Amino acid sequence: MADKAAPDPSRRSERSRRAIFDAALALVGEVGYDKLTIEGIAARAGVGKQTIYRWWPSKAAVLLDAFTAGVDEDYAKGLPDTGDLAADLKFVLRATADEFNDPVFQAPYRALAAAGANDEELSRAFVGRLLEPGTRVYVERLRAAQEAGQVAAGIDVRVAVEMLLSPFSQRWLMRTGELTHEYVDTLVDQVLCGLRPRD
Amino acid sequence: MADKAAPDPSRRSERSRRAIFDAALALVGEVGYDKLTIEGIAARAGVGKQTIYRWWPSKAAVLLDAFTAGVDEDYAKGLPDTGDLAADLKFVLRATADEFNDPVFQAPYRALAAAGANDEELSRAFVGRLLEPGTRVYVERLRAAQEAGQVAAGIDVRVAVEMLLSPFSQRWLMRTGELTHEYVDTLVDQVLCGLRPRD
Repeated sequence: MADKAAPDPSRRSERSRRAIFDAALALVGEVGYDKLTIEGIAARAGVGKQTIYRWWPSKAAVLLDAFTAGVDEDYAKGLPDTGDLAADLKFVLRATADEFNDPVFQAPYRALAAAGANDEELSRAFVGRLLEPGTRVYVERLRAAQEAGQVAAGIDVRVAVEMLLSPFSQRWLMRTGELTHEYVDTLVDQVLCGLRPRD
Repeated sequence: MADKAAPDPSRRSERSRRAIFDAALALVGEVGYDKLTIEGIAARAGVGKQTIYRWWPSKAAVLLDAFTAGVDEDYAKGLPDTGDLAADLKFVLRATADEFNDPVFQAPYRALAAAGANDEELSRAFVGRLLEPGTRVYVERLRAAQEAGQVAAGIDVRVAVEMLLSPFSQRWLMRTGELTHEYVDTLVDQVLCGLRPRD
């Protein structure tokens, strides 16, 4: 009961951070990046705007932290490695498809993609903080498979990962097709087919 | 000398159309889609804004025609088919890389991509008029190769084309890597590697 008597300041900070991230993600999905303001985020999160300025220099910085808060831990863990490359990739990409199909996830992500297309600096920050770390875990998984002899030695693993992830994200961004589990399986199978060592 | 005495009205229309397209592409690259206006296009093209309204209902319609004016003819011709699939794909994608690396091409295209990320209706029009016809010529070329026995029967040709084109456009859009001829060749080779019939 000690924390009722004397509230833990670090726990309170953590609650504020989480409220600020939730507010930033919800708001950018609703009003777009251009109309997002620190004042709006503060009001929605129920904190003073000085609280936000104490931790972040700009709305872009808040938003990048908000987007990466959930995934940094996932990236640190890397992809599953059961030894079955196809099964591991299908498992992760099916879960990612479910997430991309969720409207709550879609709105802020589309707003950030739109802002990035206009704003080169924001785009580079977004790529460096979110897209590149996300790509790297796939590169590492494929490299492990290459070392295990499941992927041919001459393959450019980075290009192979782009063959897997770019069609997936472009389908979503351009709305050119559904991200179904069946689609994910076909994509994984067709990409891996070309990577296997020739006998 | 007959056309000096009596100017050909269809030729004059064609000159105005071309001037309007050039003005629309230059302006959208400079000011972005949101600030693009019919008045601005008319002033830049040296035509009255009624001339534009006579032919197009909106700035989006002008822009879509401007973007597709150059490519409709290319799409009708389809991809080259020398019988060597890898060589044909490398030839076309190297030329496309050169075009994407040209700043004159980049600015309007990035502006349209940004507008499309915000505006679902515009995005669907852009995909339907520009992206899908561009994808289709690759699907047709791969299908011809499949019929010739150079691509395995079980391959989903549409997914294969996305494995080729999406990494290319995402690299450009997200600025995650250079679109060099060497990159194009690696991409084509790695995609085709998985499509070949197994002996």
